[in-house]
Amino acid sequence: VRLVFGLAACLVLWTACRTGDPRSSHSAIPPRLGPKLYLRGGAEHDELNARADRLVSMALANGQAYEILEDLCTTAPHRLAGSPGAERAVEWGYDTMRRLGLRNVRREAVMVPRWVRGDIEKLSLVGTAEEFKITALGGSIGTPAAGLAGEVVMVRSFEQLKQLGDKARGKIVFFNRLMNPALLNTFAAYGGAVDQRSRGPIHAARAGGIAAIVRSMTTLINDYPHTGATRYEAGLPKVPAVAISTKGAERLAALLQEGTVSLNLQLSCRTLPDVASANVVGEIVGMKPNEIVLIGGHLDAWDIGQGAHDDGAGIAHCLEAMRLIQVSGLCPKRTIRCVLYMNEENGVRGARAYVQRHKQDLERGTHYAAIESDRGGFRPRGFDSSARDERLAELQRVVEPLRSYHMGAMIKGRHGGVDISFLRPYCRLLFGLVPSSQRYFDFHHSDLDRMEAVNERELALGAAALAYLASVLADE
Amino acid sequence: VRLVFGLAACLVLWTACRTGDPRSSHSAIPPRLGPKLYLRGGAEHDELNARADRLVSMALANGQAYEILEDLCTTAPHRLAGSPGAERAVEWGYDTMRRLGLRNVRREAVMVPRWVRGDIEKLSLVGTAEEFKITALGGSIGTPAAGLAGEVVMVRSFEQLKQLGDKARGKIVFFNRLMNPALLNTFAAYGGAVDQRSRGPIHAARAGGIAAIVRSMTTLINDYPHTGATRYEAGLPKVPAVAISTKGAERLAALLQEGTVSLNLQLSCRTLPDVASANVVGEIVGMKPNEIVLIGGHLDAWDIGQGAHDDGAGIAHCLEAMRLIQVSGLCPKRTIRCVLYMNEENGVRGARAYVQRHKQDLERGTHYAAIESDRGGFRPRGFDSSARDERLAELQRVVEPLRSYHMGAMIKGRHGGVDISFLRPYCRLLFGLVPSSQRYFDFHHSDLDRMEAVNERELALGAAALAYLASVLADE
Repeated sequence: VRLVFGLAACLVLWTACRTGDPRSSHSAIPPRLGPKLYLRGGAEHDELNARADRLVSMALANGQAYEILEDLCTTAPHRLAGSPGAERAVEWGYDTMRRLGLRNVRREAVMVPRWVRGDIEKLSLVGTAEEFKITALGGSIGTPAAGLAGEVVMVRSFEQLKQLGDKARGKIVFFNRLMNPALLNTFAAYGGAVDQRSRGPIHAARAGGIAAIVRSMTTLINDYPHTGATRYEAGLPKVPAVAISTKGAERLAALLQEGTVSLNLQLSCRTLPDVASANVVGEIVGMKPNEIVLIGGHLDAWDIGQGAHDDGAGIAHCLEAMRLIQVSGLCPKRTIRCVLYMNEENGVRGARAYVQRHKQDLERGTHYAAIESDRGGFRPRGFDSSARDERLAELQRVVEPLRSYHMGAMIKGRHGGVDISFLRPYCRLLFGLVPSSQRYFDFHHSDLDRMEAVNERELALGAAALAYLASVLADE
Repeated sequence: VRLVFGLAACLVLWTACRTGDPRSSHSAIPPRLGPKLYLRGGAEHDELNARADRLVSMALANGQAYEILEDLCTTAPHRLAGSPGAERAVEWGYDTMRRLGLRNVRREAVMVPRWVRGDIEKLSLVGTAEEFKITALGGSIGTPAAGLAGEVVMVRSFEQLKQLGDKARGKIVFFNRLMNPALLNTFAAYGGAVDQRSRGPIHAARAGGIAAIVRSMTTLINDYPHTGATRYEAGLPKVPAVAISTKGAERLAALLQEGTVSLNLQLSCRTLPDVASANVVGEIVGMKPNEIVLIGGHLDAWDIGQGAHDDGAGIAHCLEAMRLIQVSGLCPKRTIRCVLYMNEENGVRGARAYVQRHKQDLERGTHYAAIESDRGGFRPRGFDSSARDERLAELQRVVEPLRSYHMGAMIKGRHGGVDISFLRPYCRLLFGLVPSSQRYFDFHHSDLDRMEAVNERELALGAAALAYLASVLADE
């Protein structure tokens, strides 16, 4: 039956995609009753298989995820929270949701930090013309205009820095621990190195250092530095912090092998007062309108590259999933709410504001499930889930129809993603879309994270998987 | 145990990769006895898990697949059989096998066709300056120097062309059937369209046409034409044949909607007499030296792009698998023979010559198994296999240790690949490495098939999977 349906769907879509522009048609789709699920019988099983087939075929043959992403990356390539680009992204998100025919489209206000990179980012070898490719870490303070010069001390860990005692005093601390390339999951490798970026300046200051240089978070060796958020600790001096390209890190380590190295660092970045911004929210209203299945990603992105994978892809996944659910004629029982979060990268204010604003609803248990996409637009493998073991086995059956598309994995996870992790006290079912992680950190937070790094079919499959899980959870 | 071993292996490799160059060390690895397998006990299971962990960690942390591929693509970017580039590739293959410490390294001679593209490839709209991006199909005849002009007739199928009757006589036949984007497996979509390329000129000639234009085999819409082999039939006229970019195909179809279109085609390609070339062969000699597990890919590639995925990746997979098996200290029972086949793209002479030359051995049943890699260097999912159902379940257990790396699939297939399909009468176990197919036809046979399209980690994983299966089959 599945095969026959699949072939039939292909034929229908094949014809459809040759003849018309579906953009014009979503709002014209007549609503029909959602199917009954979980009767554990053959018919429901067939319906879910057919649903998966339909969503995947539509996404591949006639999807718009790639166009949506291209549109975002063209409209607001740089969209760090608080920037004019982020405001363009908010307007774009609002307009796109309306164009897609979503209901209750709105901006939900949130105050966000405003960090500005400025024009000057320069790290040079004192006494030479040699420069390194760097990028200020988000949240870093700037240096005096003439720069800040000092000897460099290299460490691989905070422990090693501590053991140096006074030897780091007055120096520039260079954190040069690699992401472990032997780990299959590059997010695990990232997790084993990213404390240098997020807390390096704190440890540098504690050791009496004057600045922090952090090896970029990637397993590639090239000349593209990778930015990301860093933090300071109250009661400690703030020191300027930058990421150096991995090629630069290797070069610097080699120079340090030969003897003393002094560097001059100039940064013009600074933090301005908080400004108003917004999460963007839109819905497919279900027959039980007050029960919510939330899908989300983050609208903000770093100010280098285009944030195409991080998290343009997540935004495209979510918006395309909403479109697919509508055009496939599904009429979910629960409301599917799409949230484009603001400020995931450097403050997570959007996620906090969402919880604040919807606290009453959340406490009433209205949020049945939430799914986040924030791991890039690569070939999806399935989902991870916060569910407990018994429930996980059930959920494995739910995504079984995605298995023939090699995206039926249901992995034990923690909270699906940073933004929806704030829902944890109120919502037991948190999911994250899990794409292949092999290439993610080639691009992440760097100038390489552009449209060219995204494959149309891989992106489309992510949207189909998300549409499937959201729609099934909404009917469950 | 597995986790502990994995962590230990990571640590060891981590240290190793920080301290020395493994290139200098493979021949120094002391041989040790291969483990006993298939006792179905816990220890053997643990050994296989440990082997998979070791091979994957080594490939990811300290692999050379990417360097091998880069070396090939730099040494012989254009290496169509019979060309000077192909001869450089043969020498490169021979030298690389020697450098990797393989035994019985040799060239096995084979006569190959010699098709030459020439400098002129031009398709223009008569009466205008408008040109289309095209590439001659491999094996095509050229046109008269002044070109060949004619009206265009577009068809989506051979059936449709047949129904045109005499209306195609004297015309240029434009085959414009799309690869079906709704199919998950792009090789299936390719299979549904590629007859236009391989047999278009035959059908065009049969209908009285004067040339064949074929829509490029890709689901992308862009201006890169994709070449590939085409055929003529004895007794029918030969007509010149080209692939047009998909953007060009869309443009041409739009022009035909408006009215009559006449084109002028100029091609300077031609076929010269056959020349001598070679397959390149090297071995890891087992304790039962005359029993063979063969792994192979093809050394030749089309003369545009660099053949990085097709089939540089397969060559890199095979050579790196041979290196990994050696440096991991495995000492397989059967001989593992690596064959770099010549002329897969336009004649398959290498595969035929291999069977001719080794006929006696093959008839004695010396070839226990063969694995081919010729589907690109993308994220591997596992293997397909010619084995029958009962055996397939056993083989599924064999690759079980690859499952935690998401490459443990063992799919029912036909013959693993074009080159090893010639072994079918003599060898029951034929396997093909199966990577994700989503991006393959973005690059295949086009100028885009370059190093930049290959990801180091994805390529490394393919080599590890291949090394694992080859070494386990050799011990079975």
